[in-house]
Amino acid sequence: MKVANFSEVEARSVSEPGAKGVTLRVLMGKNVGATNYVMRHFELAPGGNTPFHTHDWEHEVFVLSGQGKVRRTAGGETEIGPGSFVFVAANEEHGFTCTGSAPLAFLCVVPGGKYPGQ
Amino acid sequence: MKVANFSEVEARSVSEPGAKGVTLRVLMGKNVGATNYVMRHFELAPGGNTPFHTHDWEHEVFVLSGQGKVRRTAGGETEIGPGSFVFVAANEEHGFTCTGSAPLAFLCVVPGGKYPGQ
Repeated sequence: MKVANFSEVEARSVSEPGAKGVTLRVLMGKNVGATNYVMRHFELAPGGNTPFHTHDWEHEVFVLSGQGKVRRTAGGETEIGPGSFVFVAANEEHGFTCTGSAPLAFLCVVPGGKYPGQ
Repeated sequence: MKVANFSEVEARSVSEPGAKGVTLRVLMGKNVGATNYVMRHFELAPGGNTPFHTHDWEHEVFVLSGQGKVRRTAGGETEIGPGSFVFVAANEEHGFTCTGSAPLAFLCVVPGGKYPGQ
């Protein structure tokens, strides 16, 4: 068993093209012996966003704090806030934006092997 | 894509032997087309607990609010609170207890096919 607080995990700035003000922490993946799926913690600074992109794996997202929106294919947007959850299917375009004055924090679970090193 | 708030999901009382004051919501599993892993939302009432048990699949847990503890094999306990995360490996004994005066809320991700109907 591994027990810790997310704040103890090293935070990395996401430098992927299209990302702005995005900080990532890998909470549970190969680092703790988890190979099936990986839980990551994201924090988007006010005005920040993840890339609007697509890939061949799914996301399970849960919003912890802050306000934001998720962009869908064909330009649609949906507001998200604390307690929102978002399932993004494989090959579905998506992007997250922080629209509030405080950071937007969320968890994002992906299959194992889809994040470098995990 | 599926976007909703956890509070919109039907809450079920957990009647498994050893469970006390446990409410469960299945956020993302087969209900949204997710087959690889399932995100569930748990709420334990003050004094409530999940069974102290073991099974052949893992848990990835993230505490949203409240105070509690996780019991480990051989009687050890670790305090948990907002922002704590817990990786429980397959076949590792574990149980969660709410020790505060407010409910203990956490997410728990399990592999697909391990929860009835998901």
